[in-house]
Amino acid sequence: MSRLPHPAPLSGEDYSAVELSPDAGRVIMLDQRELPAREVYYALGSVDEVADAIRLMVVRGAPAIGISAAYGMVLAAAAPSAGLFSALEQAGQRLEATRPTAVNLRWAVQRMLARARGLAPSAVRDALVQEALAIHREDVESCRRMGAYGAELVPDGATILTHCNAGALATGGYGTALGVIRAARDAGKKVRVLADETRPYLQGARLTAWELHASRIDVTVICDNMAAYWFGRGAIDLCVVGADRIARNGDVANKIGTYNVACLAKLHERPFYVAAPWSTFDLDCASGGQIPIEQRDGREITEISRGTTGTAGFPLAASPSSTAGTRAAETRAAGPDAAHPDTAAFRHRLVPEGVAVLNPAFDVTPGTLVTSLITERGVVAPVGEAGIAALAAAERRS
Amino acid sequence: MSRLPHPAPLSGEDYSAVELSPDAGRVIMLDQRELPAREVYYALGSVDEVADAIRLMVVRGAPAIGISAAYGMVLAAAAPSAGLFSALEQAGQRLEATRPTAVNLRWAVQRMLARARGLAPSAVRDALVQEALAIHREDVESCRRMGAYGAELVPDGATILTHCNAGALATGGYGTALGVIRAARDAGKKVRVLADETRPYLQGARLTAWELHASRIDVTVICDNMAAYWFGRGAIDLCVVGADRIARNGDVANKIGTYNVACLAKLHERPFYVAAPWSTFDLDCASGGQIPIEQRDGREITEISRGTTGTAGFPLAASPSSTAGTRAAETRAAGPDAAHPDTAAFRHRLVPEGVAVLNPAFDVTPGTLVTSLITERGVVAPVGEAGIAALAAAERRS
Repeated sequence: MSRLPHPAPLSGEDYSAVELSPDAGRVIMLDQRELPAREVYYALGSVDEVADAIRLMVVRGAPAIGISAAYGMVLAAAAPSAGLFSALEQAGQRLEATRPTAVNLRWAVQRMLARARGLAPSAVRDALVQEALAIHREDVESCRRMGAYGAELVPDGATILTHCNAGALATGGYGTALGVIRAARDAGKKVRVLADETRPYLQGARLTAWELHASRIDVTVICDNMAAYWFGRGAIDLCVVGADRIARNGDVANKIGTYNVACLAKLHERPFYVAAPWSTFDLDCASGGQIPIEQRDGREITEISRGTTGTAGFPLAASPSSTAGTRAAETRAAGPDAAHPDTAAFRHRLVPEGVAVLNPAFDVTPGTLVTSLITERGVVAPVGEAGIAALAAAERRS
Repeated sequence: MSRLPHPAPLSGEDYSAVELSPDAGRVIMLDQRELPAREVYYALGSVDEVADAIRLMVVRGAPAIGISAAYGMVLAAAAPSAGLFSALEQAGQRLEATRPTAVNLRWAVQRMLARARGLAPSAVRDALVQEALAIHREDVESCRRMGAYGAELVPDGATILTHCNAGALATGGYGTALGVIRAARDAGKKVRVLADETRPYLQGARLTAWELHASRIDVTVICDNMAAYWFGRGAIDLCVVGADRIARNGDVANKIGTYNVACLAKLHERPFYVAAPWSTFDLDCASGGQIPIEQRDGREITEISRGTTGTAGFPLAASPSSTAGTRAAETRAAGPDAAHPDTAAFRHRLVPEGVAVLNPAFDVTPGTLVTSLITERGVVAPVGEAGIAALAAAERRS
């Protein structure tokens, strides 16, 4: 039985970052801020709620927020026929504005708008439901394809460093970087994962550890500043990470700290792989310098909190039985952590009052530091404009 | 008026990591685990309490724990004359065993034991009081000297990256790496500091930010994984860090993450300086591979807690008015944070139950990556066995 309040999740797992309710009237979303302590799902009923959830990182991961935006467009399609197309345009703008770096948001919104164009208003909603589900299904399929390509690059017995979470929770299911690791394991290879905890949001400690542990893949969490220690001892065989946007020349925007990993891989002569679907490539972007880097609220660094109001009023967690407006919370405690006694609300300051912080959410790794780009269309190596152009020309198989 | 419950602190500041009470019967120690939220001092009355405090990182920083151990030996000298020398030997072993990496512990204990040898038992305590105070005074003086040497290496207008806390809180006062920064500022140079937060113990976010802010030096806290981002943008002019042990060949053991910073400095062609007193050099140690690396409790990574019992029963904070055994707590709230409303006890898990973590507390940076060693005896560059041997031969001026 699925823990997820959805009868047939497209993720293929018994948990999911995001799904569309069977009646297409709600977006079911896992609150990733509450993991690993609790597995809380929201049923979001409006574009504004979906946009808030993306902005506040209830859902995160470039492919997953692209799918979330597509489902958000489905909710917008419930608008009256008279103002339908303008409602869709506004919803698209609202969703695209939530986070600037991942290009999948724009890609998904534009694909949904393109699907609606030219249809009779009465046909739009059904068409958008099918298009959003297709985006989700294609993403899972892409993850599995890039997993198969990437698994060939993983030696048996490898210790693999990953950063942030590029797993089932960051995608429609299966994962990009973690999909490569899953596929290597499923091909019979022994793998061990070192997961950077990934400050400030701790996607590695909380999310990558959670889903790899659930998949019985050997995972050890390290602090971000410890990767160099393990590189220095020769303990890391390769790195694989996801991406939020890849420029035409192969420069990769991904979670802050990715460039650090790439520098270490370079200095220690280990491969650095990036796994991402074609929807993450932005051919309009000549190089990484043109990718907007989101600067997030400094409180993500200065404090650790739980159960208190988030930065913009979206509750960090609805209590299991509560509803807030049209938002209904459903929850089932995650397995081994359910018994944890300490779940009181708190706010704990880590940095003295009055001290400045800087919180760029992403960095850019030059394509020259990337050994290969692993996509559902194949592997690009060496990384650069020519290889990516060849990929662009390749027939989309899905 | 000093916030510190001591009439004449040797630190020269109105706060101090460690001082000897005027009657030499107590070691006054700041609980650095409580900063920046609260400034809590303990008055420790026994060697065992001092040893616990070192082990549990109530005090940390190689020079500061050396001084703490020296003061702990003073407390041991209150033993009856009959068993005095064996009590001192046992106390020394107990103190040396608290933490394996910093050589200053052994250095201070051995210096104290050497001072006691050959004296009549009745003369030991006074001699050890004077010796411990001398160790403390010399450390402050060393910091000021290395500050003067190091300041010459800092260009006006520099942005300086530092890691962990190598400041007044890590020493007898003034600081090693932060002493260099203080001295540059006091020499009229404009400096800006980027402080790595330094997971898992957050010495940078909590301690470096606290003391630089108090000294009105421009400091910005970044997550450890963000330093590469700023290097990549050319925003960092130089790095300066402290050390816990320096081998004969110039390899440097320091807080975990230091090697990461050194790798980034190398790749981005920026100077990487290490500031440390001569007491941190271990000429018996041929290279970094021989330096024992402390592996600490994984709970430092898997959870954030406050006000709950520490890993071995030493309270994280005595309440301001309580006493526990012979330990008396005195406290005065730190300035701007005193009004912070959220001080409830909590324990918050960051990593799922059942997931492995690795927590090496230090790493080793090869001397080949160190631009210069800044000591109270002068600057060693290039870094290597010859330069350090020359330093060893240099007359100790203090």
